[in-house]
Amino acid sequence: MNNIESLDRLINYFSNLPSVGAKTAQRYAYFILNKPKEYVQEFAQALIDANTNVHYCKICGNFTDKDVCDICSTRKNNVICVVKEPKDVLAIEKVKNFKGQYHILHGTLSPLDNRGPDDIKIKELLMRIQEGGVEEVIMATNPDVEGEATAMYISKLLKPFGVKITRLSQGVSMGSDIEYADEVTLARAIEDRKEI
Amino acid sequence: MNNIESLDRLINYFSNLPSVGAKTAQRYAYFILNKPKEYVQEFAQALIDANTNVHYCKICGNFTDKDVCDICSTRKNNVICVVKEPKDVLAIEKVKNFKGQYHILHGTLSPLDNRGPDDIKIKELLMRIQEGGVEEVIMATNPDVEGEATAMYISKLLKPFGVKITRLSQGVSMGSDIEYADEVTLARAIEDRKEI
Repeated sequence: MNNIESLDRLINYFSNLPSVGAKTAQRYAYFILNKPKEYVQEFAQALIDANTNVHYCKICGNFTDKDVCDICSTRKNNVICVVKEPKDVLAIEKVKNFKGQYHILHGTLSPLDNRGPDDIKIKELLMRIQEGGVEEVIMATNPDVEGEATAMYISKLLKPFGVKITRLSQGVSMGSDIEYADEVTLARAIEDRKEI
Repeated sequence: MNNIESLDRLINYFSNLPSVGAKTAQRYAYFILNKPKEYVQEFAQALIDANTNVHYCKICGNFTDKDVCDICSTRKNNVICVVKEPKDVLAIEKVKNFKGQYHILHGTLSPLDNRGPDDIKIKELLMRIQEGGVEEVIMATNPDVEGEATAMYISKLLKPFGVKITRLSQGVSMGSDIEYADEVTLARAIEDRKEI
């Protein structure tokens, strides 16, 4: 694009980042060109360090730079919250009212994308439950088709172990306008209505 | 954020990129965590290479990895197109009907931001014209307040040299709808109307 080999190479790497197009990648690259040498070297080192030091926690599958992540090593495993991705853990941790452990599936079942039970971390979840101590599993996969299907599939697998299986409640969002709620959500909210 | 030092450090560097917020920086970082070691090392090297090899062309001020950029070393300097930033050169080069050289100001005059004539590359432009051979200077700064002011300021400076000074024509955009054109643009388009 610029006919400058090292610049075009950098733009190419930036444009491989998720949802980054050609123009954005170029802006990022120009930003780097204008930065002091030390800053760019530290940025480069940060890339390598994160990629080298960070791996999956051997219990829950979340990112950590230790063998076992901080959450797994400090909390009891009586309640396990099953999520699709590491970023879901951050979202739930922000709420601060969940004090159990997590299990990250790293994906959802998706026959269309050829993603079956062996492609996500279901086996690891079953092993954790077989080891004992788990009283409740909260299925916190996304409330979309794939998330629902994955939650249903896993809850069937877990039935024989006799643990309590729950799902995040679904309904209208707090602070939203009923007028604009979609039909499926509204139907679910009416069906699951609670006495006050 | 994640309480993992090397991950948080990488997220921090990503969030320093232009227009990148916390969530986007996190997505970029997670993308890096999931990439093979070799890929990330090449990305890191690309950052350093671009920052080390690429600098300003000593004639026009555009980015290059040589002493003089490809455009300055292959084209005649009888017409010089003055732009604000290197990315403007890319935009004009795409059109393929301009065959002259460029001059990159690296900014516009902006008293509010304390940016005066010495903060952008006006001196370098005057030197190029003093060296001779320049017949026309096209002012292609943005058609906004700062771009207009900069174009006016420079054209006054250039007057004594006797070179022809032109400005990109302004008017309604091709393919646009007159109904939605802003008033200033429409007023200019009427004022600058051409006989057909």
